[in-house]
Amino acid sequence: MRAKGTRARLAGLRDAMREHGVAAYIVPSSDPHQSEYVPARWARREWMSGFTGSAGDLVVGLAGGGLWTDGRYHLQARQQLRGSGLKLFPVGEKDVPTIERHLAKTLPRESAVGVDPAVIGMRRARRIARALASDGVALKPIEENLVDAVRGPVPGRRSRARVVPLATQFAGETSASKLRRVRRAMRERGADALVVTTLDAIAWLFNVRGSDVAYNPVVIAYAVVTADEAVLHVDRAKIDAAAEAHLRRTARIEPYAAIRRTLRGLGRRKAVVWIDPDSTSLMCGRLLDGARPVFAPSPIARMKARKNDVELAGIRAAHRRDGAAMVRFLHWLSRAVPAGGVTEMGAAAALEGLRSEGEHFQGLSFPTIAGYAGHGAIIHYSVDEASDVPLRPEGLFLVDSGAHYLDGTTDITRTLLLGGRPTGPQRDCYTRVLKGHIAIATARFPAGTTGARLDTLARAALWQSGRDYAHGTGHGVGAYLNVHEGPQSISHRSTEVPLEPGNVQSNEPGYYEPGEFGIRIENLVEVVKDETVAPRDFLRFETLTLCPIEKRLIEPELLSADERGWLDAYHARVLETLGPDLDRDDRTWLERACVPLDAT
Amino acid sequence: MRAKGTRARLAGLRDAMREHGVAAYIVPSSDPHQSEYVPARWARREWMSGFTGSAGDLVVGLAGGGLWTDGRYHLQARQQLRGSGLKLFPVGEKDVPTIERHLAKTLPRESAVGVDPAVIGMRRARRIARALASDGVALKPIEENLVDAVRGPVPGRRSRARVVPLATQFAGETSASKLRRVRRAMRERGADALVVTTLDAIAWLFNVRGSDVAYNPVVIAYAVVTADEAVLHVDRAKIDAAAEAHLRRTARIEPYAAIRRTLRGLGRRKAVVWIDPDSTSLMCGRLLDGARPVFAPSPIARMKARKNDVELAGIRAAHRRDGAAMVRFLHWLSRAVPAGGVTEMGAAAALEGLRSEGEHFQGLSFPTIAGYAGHGAIIHYSVDEASDVPLRPEGLFLVDSGAHYLDGTTDITRTLLLGGRPTGPQRDCYTRVLKGHIAIATARFPAGTTGARLDTLARAALWQSGRDYAHGTGHGVGAYLNVHEGPQSISHRSTEVPLEPGNVQSNEPGYYEPGEFGIRIENLVEVVKDETVAPRDFLRFETLTLCPIEKRLIEPELLSADERGWLDAYHARVLETLGPDLDRDDRTWLERACVPLDAT
Repeated sequence: MRAKGTRARLAGLRDAMREHGVAAYIVPSSDPHQSEYVPARWARREWMSGFTGSAGDLVVGLAGGGLWTDGRYHLQARQQLRGSGLKLFPVGEKDVPTIERHLAKTLPRESAVGVDPAVIGMRRARRIARALASDGVALKPIEENLVDAVRGPVPGRRSRARVVPLATQFAGETSASKLRRVRRAMRERGADALVVTTLDAIAWLFNVRGSDVAYNPVVIAYAVVTADEAVLHVDRAKIDAAAEAHLRRTARIEPYAAIRRTLRGLGRRKAVVWIDPDSTSLMCGRLLDGARPVFAPSPIARMKARKNDVELAGIRAAHRRDGAAMVRFLHWLSRAVPAGGVTEMGAAAALEGLRSEGEHFQGLSFPTIAGYAGHGAIIHYSVDEASDVPLRPEGLFLVDSGAHYLDGTTDITRTLLLGGRPTGPQRDCYTRVLKGHIAIATARFPAGTTGARLDTLARAALWQSGRDYAHGTGHGVGAYLNVHEGPQSISHRSTEVPLEPGNVQSNEPGYYEPGEFGIRIENLVEVVKDETVAPRDFLRFETLTLCPIEKRLIEPELLSADERGWLDAYHARVLETLGPDLDRDDRTWLERACVPLDAT
Repeated sequence: MRAKGTRARLAGLRDAMREHGVAAYIVPSSDPHQSEYVPARWARREWMSGFTGSAGDLVVGLAGGGLWTDGRYHLQARQQLRGSGLKLFPVGEKDVPTIERHLAKTLPRESAVGVDPAVIGMRRARRIARALASDGVALKPIEENLVDAVRGPVPGRRSRARVVPLATQFAGETSASKLRRVRRAMRERGADALVVTTLDAIAWLFNVRGSDVAYNPVVIAYAVVTADEAVLHVDRAKIDAAAEAHLRRTARIEPYAAIRRTLRGLGRRKAVVWIDPDSTSLMCGRLLDGARPVFAPSPIARMKARKNDVELAGIRAAHRRDGAAMVRFLHWLSRAVPAGGVTEMGAAAALEGLRSEGEHFQGLSFPTIAGYAGHGAIIHYSVDEASDVPLRPEGLFLVDSGAHYLDGTTDITRTLLLGGRPTGPQRDCYTRVLKGHIAIATARFPAGTTGARLDTLARAALWQSGRDYAHGTGHGVGAYLNVHEGPQSISHRSTEVPLEPGNVQSNEPGYYEPGEFGIRIENLVEVVKDETVAPRDFLRFETLTLCPIEKRLIEPELLSADERGWLDAYHARVLETLGPDLDRDDRTWLERACVPLDAT
């Protein structure tokens, strides 16, 4: 059914492509703000391809076409593309060409590739254009979005969700102070203006939150900071009196669409404009024609990633709350599954219900991944009525979930044995994943080290058994902001940006046996200075997430004494911290879940 | 004395710079072939700065100037630059700017930076030019080398060393076969011509060796490969009848200087020319004006790095020979040091003497590093009459050495306790370095993994104690070719090139306590397919170097059972393999050196 719809949509797109004289059309996953989660009206790749993952770029040719997505989504994409005529390009696997390399190799010379300049980043557009040019193919920006042309008016209006100020009690720093720091950075670069297009950067800078995008507490907006003022381009209808009073202190409010005028004005003035080529769209770059660009990563990304003391205290408090909800959930699940009638969706709903009782709860930070048995092997499995299955008291159940609280954002994965005896490979894989998790949790590293250099520590034990996982080891997490944020990460594909004290990071190695089971053990960690080896300038992680780790899947002989010691100490801390927040039944369950490994 | 000479030379250079209207002049370490070791006449950076390390770039301003070099040379450079007025920029340390960033920040707009286009790589020149341009500074190629202009005629003639054919019995593949593979790669890229400028690539391609460069068995030459022919630009005086007969099969010989005419010809013909922008000089790029360039890494680098079975068998044989020489040396040293009268230089000479008795010996593969006590902390310590010290029967002695044999090149480091009791920190550091060494030796990793991803495994144990080392973990090694070769390496700074079966790699973590001691444990390893986890496509290392590892510096409690098992198994293999090649006294000594750790 769906595949047939996809084929018809693709046919419409191909007609539009012929009208514009392009032999291929790139439909990136991203929106004008280079967001990971995009509002429905901008979810063009999903609408056109049927693939619903949060990352993946579609390229449509006049005959075929393909979808490029990373290891988290290979299984899901393969299923969702079935019958569409689209080919999966599983990024990260051997010999998978990049989009530009594939196009350069398959298109005839003198042909053109279309793209909407509003939704492709400048650097990416430049890279693709260069790669194509060497084979005589041109990248052609087309102002009209061809997917929209096929799709027609999108049901549902634009979000009018209110802009909500975030109190300094949670933000820890006023917007005025943040702007001072940003302007200092601008002066150092000699920039007259900084263009801010990413939504979480804008939310951080002005201490506001919103709900324009599912799971991301952000407001759709642009901002331009100069020495004299900060212009916030946002739909006026979203600003109530409280938001107006809050924003007035630091910002001038302009309509969202007026960003075009503001950027053209900078161009006319020949201003020196600081542009982050990774997050700024080609459209913005074109509107800035005449300006003198300074291409560099936005200073806000690193400022935002270094949480201040107030944010860190809030994040710790949010994790206590979230951990208590997780314990209640795990305890409930341990009784409900044998009793029968619980499905993946039911479990996810129960967990959301327990979380929503927590103080400052604002919503989930991403769609809960609740994958039983073979579903656990779909790294970003998204349960719906069609895929939902009952949980039986046997086998493995992977639950990856998180929430936004006013004082912090959480993200935790636990892999549970629902009953019965795990197989030898399940125990072996689980224990190796745990070894990787502990290797990151206990790592110590010189200040200035990038996350890329730590990624292998999480994999070495799995590699020893000839296994690996097709995703990064950790992403940055916002402070009541996006659950995925940069610029730092723990991934061999990651950037040059070093880990810094105050970064909040996930630590989530995994292993996936397609059709059989999935394993992931995820805690959030904070990067801290390591005082034990002072005066040497070293850093380490401190684990923030508080929730017992399934012990019945561990093969104890595979753990070293140090690793066992870490696990026992972690469980002792979980019990000590969460115990007082739980009722007696839950506490008793937690006590059992936290007994030392040798005593189990 | 030396510093005064440096100051006078710098003054002369500054006069020349003023004549050419440049505010700064870059003197790269490299020569026209982007070599690491350069012939004396091209060693301009060394002559001008007084710094003798194998890597480091000099930048001279009208007033000051600086030398950029990596962690292996920070201590040495600091000493050698003393009094010169030149500042050390210790690359790899925190906040050390790149050359281009430093120049862009310190030079006024509209000024120019000079460089000899013959000795700077195209990519590097382009990168520097771009970075300078954004601050209004120009990079100005000056055909005349300004250091040569100050220096005048260089004493000693150009090398007339003979070109020596390498028999297929050692090379394992004929030059004709190698050329076929190169031409296949050229056809895939659509290239009419491939310009080869690196000397080891030329030696590999034509199966010749030479002695134009100290420690590198190469011939100074250029080569240009087209579909019809391979032109070798080399001084005719170096070609005797045997070489002529050998080369005639695959190459047309042209004078060295005629490369300019050949490249101009390609430009005039508008040929599609494959250029490796990292190893090709800006001068070559300019001579090729008019050609249609294909910028890509040379296909030869990866072909050369994947040793064939004949080369691998030769390398293993060379390591048996080299290991036997090392054992004789270690045994001799154990008696000679207590007897007195041995110095660092004396030890190095004794080792060279023992090596030179081996079959197929051709010379050292690099200057022996023989560093006693604090000298061991100078990572690339180069002993001479002035620095030489006697070895006393106490403390640590680091010996890093290697040789060329017709069938292979070796590179080994051992850190020895000359007598007395090691300090606690010495044992702790030594054991952590050994743990890092074993982590690499026993690593297993997916095919396609880059060496950059493995580097951290060698450091993790040191990092746990707040220590690190300021050099990479491993470099590629040629087959009777340069002891440092790419493209793969084990370093967090390394390239995107994955490790492949047949790569020969060093495994050499270390630790250096300035003024006190240096520790490095280095074996060469071969990358092999891992059959134990088949059919999964994983790789592992197999250690090639055969020589006991000092056990008296080990803190046994710091080693895991697996690590102890590796060490004992390694020593058993060393004894089994080398024992038959040794006389009774040496074998008895080796037996003691190879007893299992628990028995010592």
